[in-house]
Amino acid sequence: MKISILGGGGFLGRKLAARLASKGTLGGNEVTALALFDVVEPPKPTGARFPVTALAGDVVELPEAAIPPGTDVVFHLAAVVSAQAEADYDLGRRVNLRGTDAVVDACRRLVTAGGKPPRVVFTSSVASFSATQTDTLPDDARQVPGNSYGAQKAAAELILADASRRGFLDAVSIRLPTVIVRPGRPNKAASSFFSAIVREPLLGLDTELPVGDDFAAWVCSPRRAVDWLLHAAAMDTTTMGLDRSVNPPGISTTIAHLLQALDEIQPGASRHVQRVEDKAIAAIVGTWPPAFETLHARTLGFAMHEPLVDVIRAFIEDDLAATRTERGLSG
Amino acid sequence: MKISILGGGGFLGRKLAARLASKGTLGGNEVTALALFDVVEPPKPTGARFPVTALAGDVVELPEAAIPPGTDVVFHLAAVVSAQAEADYDLGRRVNLRGTDAVVDACRRLVTAGGKPPRVVFTSSVASFSATQTDTLPDDARQVPGNSYGAQKAAAELILADASRRGFLDAVSIRLPTVIVRPGRPNKAASSFFSAIVREPLLGLDTELPVGDDFAAWVCSPRRAVDWLLHAAAMDTTTMGLDRSVNPPGISTTIAHLLQALDEIQPGASRHVQRVEDKAIAAIVGTWPPAFETLHARTLGFAMHEPLVDVIRAFIEDDLAATRTERGLSG
Repeated sequence: MKISILGGGGFLGRKLAARLASKGTLGGNEVTALALFDVVEPPKPTGARFPVTALAGDVVELPEAAIPPGTDVVFHLAAVVSAQAEADYDLGRRVNLRGTDAVVDACRRLVTAGGKPPRVVFTSSVASFSATQTDTLPDDARQVPGNSYGAQKAAAELILADASRRGFLDAVSIRLPTVIVRPGRPNKAASSFFSAIVREPLLGLDTELPVGDDFAAWVCSPRRAVDWLLHAAAMDTTTMGLDRSVNPPGISTTIAHLLQALDEIQPGASRHVQRVEDKAIAAIVGTWPPAFETLHARTLGFAMHEPLVDVIRAFIEDDLAATRTERGLSG
Repeated sequence: MKISILGGGGFLGRKLAARLASKGTLGGNEVTALALFDVVEPPKPTGARFPVTALAGDVVELPEAAIPPGTDVVFHLAAVVSAQAEADYDLGRRVNLRGTDAVVDACRRLVTAGGKPPRVVFTSSVASFSATQTDTLPDDARQVPGNSYGAQKAAAELILADASRRGFLDAVSIRLPTVIVRPGRPNKAASSFFSAIVREPLLGLDTELPVGDDFAAWVCSPRRAVDWLLHAAAMDTTTMGLDRSVNPPGISTTIAHLLQALDEIQPGASRHVQRVEDKAIAAIVGTWPPAFETLHARTLGFAMHEPLVDVIRAFIEDDLAATRTERGLSG
């Protein structure tokens, strides 16, 4: 299988590449080549038994080598994240919409040249919905986004579903929950604090919580997100019909429950969390639904989620030491 | 009020311009200027007591004069229609999506220059939904389009709703039913036959029906469509919140009922309708929902529909003679 990861230098892209390198297969088939693409040349995963190319460029001017002839699977993770897309409308529209058009066109060229439509696994987002804090959204809930990032993701889903129907590609769009715990430093996602309130205390650092302790959110771990992406890459899409989007089975949690799980793993760690209201952040995340019914995803074979304490343990196992080193903190 | 009509040379655009010219007001306010824009210079309506400018151009490269400073209302009707967008993916994407981005950018420039966000009335479509022939879609039904035109219209709705939230403009998107009876000649819309089976018999001409007599469709008259566009231009949008889209109260009818109404108006006229199956047309229109609940639209004050026989009578009153002349047919 020839695989491309657009946004291969990002948090999920790197984890996905590392998983493919260590496993060597996708859906039971051997991986024969991996192309990584991002705005900055992405790092290659260690231990891959297949050739890996790493390319830097603009997704809107996607080079042919990013999705070369014979590509079987494209993971389209390239995006301008929520707070940044809110701050810079033109940049968000360009990358999140024109970038998706460029992916469609690259896949079309492969099909026109006689290739088979590549599977495109697209990371859409819970931010494409709006809801109140007490809602549980059904599988067929309408997307009424409360932020530009979510609007662009929902529009990109429509474009990819239509391109699938036309035979240009074969898309599965996964509306990812907020992925926690992200390693490294805070980023420009409005949801950055969801990771920071676990990561920073585990590093012994103070951090700010911009919403109330009773704020409810729909989250998943990076491990499970990668599981879902790989499942979407290999699954049978024939039963999906026109609708190529899935709400995967995340976890609904409040901030209070998340901090309780943190204290169960490392007693007293939550004292590092300071309550500092941020209305701009709260306005964005406040419209994101806190829970979904996920019958469709489970019917399609997407894995159920592990408990919240395991999410924190996985961060400690997978990312805490590297984050400490990256940020020059002592162990 | 300064008003622009993009797609002002089209069927609905011309009817809308004529109505504004004859009425002279919109929502009780005097019309002070009208700008008409289309790919070919649109005809100016007769009898207008306000200045009318007519411009030709590409909606993606929208000239400033199409939405000049001080514009209060933009009717965005410019589109590549259903069968054409299905036949030419690039053209549909360019006009239906990039064209909407150009409208957003033109409105943003007015706001950046200190103006107020113009009301943008956008014609979305029933084609943005898919359903079976027995469905009645609720107001909050998800759009899962079965054609590129519908996908592009649904994506444009998302872009316009987001632009409204950001204060670039103030959008109302109306998912128009199939508008019958269109004057003139058959066009490239997959739904062209819905008008042809009434219009051609009234002209004494034979015409082909590509679907079965029991085929059900959601239709409206041009008069009512213009009423809705004008209502959307003047209504209070504050109760709409993030959701700027409306399913207006059309009529659900079968082909058999439509032909029966035709024969009630002109006995025996339906003998001109020949059954000639067209699978390509049937595949496009076959996924369009035949009925909608329209509580939201009625709550917002959109006018209920007149009976089907009145739709045919209105065509005879408004358009039959002109169509006869245009096509060089004797009376």
